[in-house]
Amino acid sequence: MKSLFAVKGNIIYTKELGKFEVCEQGYIVVEDDEIIGVFSELEEKYKEIEVIDYGDNLLIPGFVDLHVHAPQYPNIGLGLDKELMPWLETYTFPEESKYKDITYAEKVYSRFVHDLWKHGTTRAVVFGTIHKEATKRLMDLFAEAGLGAYVGKVNMDRNSPEFLCEETQNSIDDTLEIVKEYKDKYELVKPIITPRFVPSCTPELMEELGKIAKEYNVPVQSHLSENFGEICFVKELHPDAPFYGSIYDMYGLFGDTPTIMAHCVLCSEDEVNLIAEKGVFIAHNPNSNCNLASGIAPIRRLLARGIHIGLGSDVSGGHTLSMAHACVITSQVSNIKWIQSDRIDKPLSTADAFYLATKGGGAFFGKVGSFEPGYKFDCLVIDDSCLPHFKPLTVMERLQKYLYTGDDRNIKARYVNGKLVNEPKVIA
Amino acid sequence: MKSLFAVKGNIIYTKELGKFEVCEQGYIVVEDDEIIGVFSELEEKYKEIEVIDYGDNLLIPGFVDLHVHAPQYPNIGLGLDKELMPWLETYTFPEESKYKDITYAEKVYSRFVHDLWKHGTTRAVVFGTIHKEATKRLMDLFAEAGLGAYVGKVNMDRNSPEFLCEETQNSIDDTLEIVKEYKDKYELVKPIITPRFVPSCTPELMEELGKIAKEYNVPVQSHLSENFGEICFVKELHPDAPFYGSIYDMYGLFGDTPTIMAHCVLCSEDEVNLIAEKGVFIAHNPNSNCNLASGIAPIRRLLARGIHIGLGSDVSGGHTLSMAHACVITSQVSNIKWIQSDRIDKPLSTADAFYLATKGGGAFFGKVGSFEPGYKFDCLVIDDSCLPHFKPLTVMERLQKYLYTGDDRNIKARYVNGKLVNEPKVIA
Repeated sequence: MKSLFAVKGNIIYTKELGKFEVCEQGYIVVEDDEIIGVFSELEEKYKEIEVIDYGDNLLIPGFVDLHVHAPQYPNIGLGLDKELMPWLETYTFPEESKYKDITYAEKVYSRFVHDLWKHGTTRAVVFGTIHKEATKRLMDLFAEAGLGAYVGKVNMDRNSPEFLCEETQNSIDDTLEIVKEYKDKYELVKPIITPRFVPSCTPELMEELGKIAKEYNVPVQSHLSENFGEICFVKELHPDAPFYGSIYDMYGLFGDTPTIMAHCVLCSEDEVNLIAEKGVFIAHNPNSNCNLASGIAPIRRLLARGIHIGLGSDVSGGHTLSMAHACVITSQVSNIKWIQSDRIDKPLSTADAFYLATKGGGAFFGKVGSFEPGYKFDCLVIDDSCLPHFKPLTVMERLQKYLYTGDDRNIKARYVNGKLVNEPKVIA
Repeated sequence: MKSLFAVKGNIIYTKELGKFEVCEQGYIVVEDDEIIGVFSELEEKYKEIEVIDYGDNLLIPGFVDLHVHAPQYPNIGLGLDKELMPWLETYTFPEESKYKDITYAEKVYSRFVHDLWKHGTTRAVVFGTIHKEATKRLMDLFAEAGLGAYVGKVNMDRNSPEFLCEETQNSIDDTLEIVKEYKDKYELVKPIITPRFVPSCTPELMEELGKIAKEYNVPVQSHLSENFGEICFVKELHPDAPFYGSIYDMYGLFGDTPTIMAHCVLCSEDEVNLIAEKGVFIAHNPNSNCNLASGIAPIRRLLARGIHIGLGSDVSGGHTLSMAHACVITSQVSNIKWIQSDRIDKPLSTADAFYLATKGGGAFFGKVGSFEPGYKFDCLVIDDSCLPHFKPLTVMERLQKYLYTGDDRNIKARYVNGKLVNEPKVIA
């Protein structure tokens, strides 16, 4: 028998870029994991169903974090005084080497999953490390917590410190093992092929990863055109490649299965064309792009090309898991980009940024990130009563105030895939 | 009899730009309101004094907010989708008109002062509104709370909506009344002459304000070269003025007494020269400058000119009172500026930003914002134990992690001018 229930509150979400849908004191009717619809009054046929009344609270879609590195969580807020390549060598690689220790991994990863939950992220696309066991454990922890995730064992077999460099064949074997074991293990947690980025993967490795992705129909994630130094290094390594993204594409890692490329700050026109043509998603990580002095991605222009875009926290290049904060800085840097572009690239409004943080990134998970019929019911209950209010505000204004000035304290409940998700356990 | 005591903990502060001073498990010895010194061991002569032991907590100077608009607090996090001039007209001016109602003013201002306290701001330079009584009440509330502040009654007698435009003589009279009444009323709370900005003040008004500043030796604050549209308007109004700042200067409002100019995003070379020559302070407001699409102030270049710079939250152009957050975005936009300047204007490190948020702005208050001997004892006790820690961190790293990932929950105690300051009352 199917479960049928409704949640009641001040409903706000985005069907399309830049436009909020609002239903004050409305009902979201949910059947099992899916939304039947949003209604201002309950129809006769729903009169008997359970209604969970959240009073004056806001009901918004759960946040989707399209790019985050779980093993970098211990470095959050640290070492943000370098550009990408030296930052990787100085701070990130040494930390990532620790995850051969499953006890350490469990300790960090359980807190990481807990804190994603805390900040209202209901779905995430996650980098692990090269370590097979730790990555499996991370997937288990997501599943135990009830959050949705794609989790990737990272592949690195060149230009990496010895303590973090794989034998090519091991890298392939371990990836294959995880794909086979976890492809159908969980409903909400799935593997994703994760070559770290071109500099750290041999062509041989990339070729095999592309084959695995295709054979098992597994999605792909990596980094693309993030930072000036990185792009120069890729050019040195692949002088004949027309552009960075073409290298992934050559090996079947650029949209042959669903693909996310993180950053895309400095893409050439040809690269943008290929992204658009192959339906590749872009994960926009403005905090990280500012912290590591990468620049401002031209999101408005990329959106105009019809490219799928979501937001990423990119911890620990980014310094917070809060996707509300990601919305704010998305708008902020878009304002600076607007000036830089001689006022051509229109700023991103709160509604634009919110769309990217919910439905934009949610599209990678299927029907996720909106309250439209047929969408998975991922929902946050926002209690903004403790934020300073001195005058009546519209629901839209209340959402804006929460995004700009609220924090995890305002999130009263989280639903993922139709289920209320309680606080996950942290393993000490 | 003088009071003599010490606080013990992990002490960290900045004497100079870009360099942290650290004393682990050290003592700050305080006599009345002033710091005697920082010691790693207590000398024999201090063996008998009271020691308040904060254990493993961090001890940092209190934050100084060099630019904030108290009456805009109800708008915090709202309406950040416009540039300065339309933002003022649509959101800000209508809100500011409400402060003729002293009950409303008291309600907002008591919460505003409370929330400054909550976020660890121990000294602030504040814009009120044109309203005399509300501005006086704001000064009283600061004094009752035990925080340090310069508070300005705003002057506006042209180009302002009818409901927020003063008669010139009234504006002068009210300013003079406040200056006389409050100049020596409180030790930590003082009046400051506050022409809103050139567009809203007639030359006659500015001339009289300059005279009051000089006669009573009162400091001055205003806005300067914040936004493209604003600067164009000033040029229209004063076609003969060589540059925006020269208009303030002509009327004795540009460094003849201690002066803060907020923003300075788009200053011409001549304007920068005059700022440097006349010792004018700049309040750098990166959140607001991003939110209102003003741009990125060239802080590195201004610092190289020896100009005094502090940070401002600029609520509600800025969306948070947190000066920790102001530090973060100061570094972030400086990274973007570094790219924009063809990598000439070096990024601002955490130590640079922290200096600006403490000693940089503190200098406007005298010896404030550092733990050097002779400085006023303004101090925050930071308990970072609930932030995720997975490895031993240095005191410097712990401060960085608090700034980037902490919030008001981490502030365990606040001292201002030698006194522990408890939670201020909010008037409902």
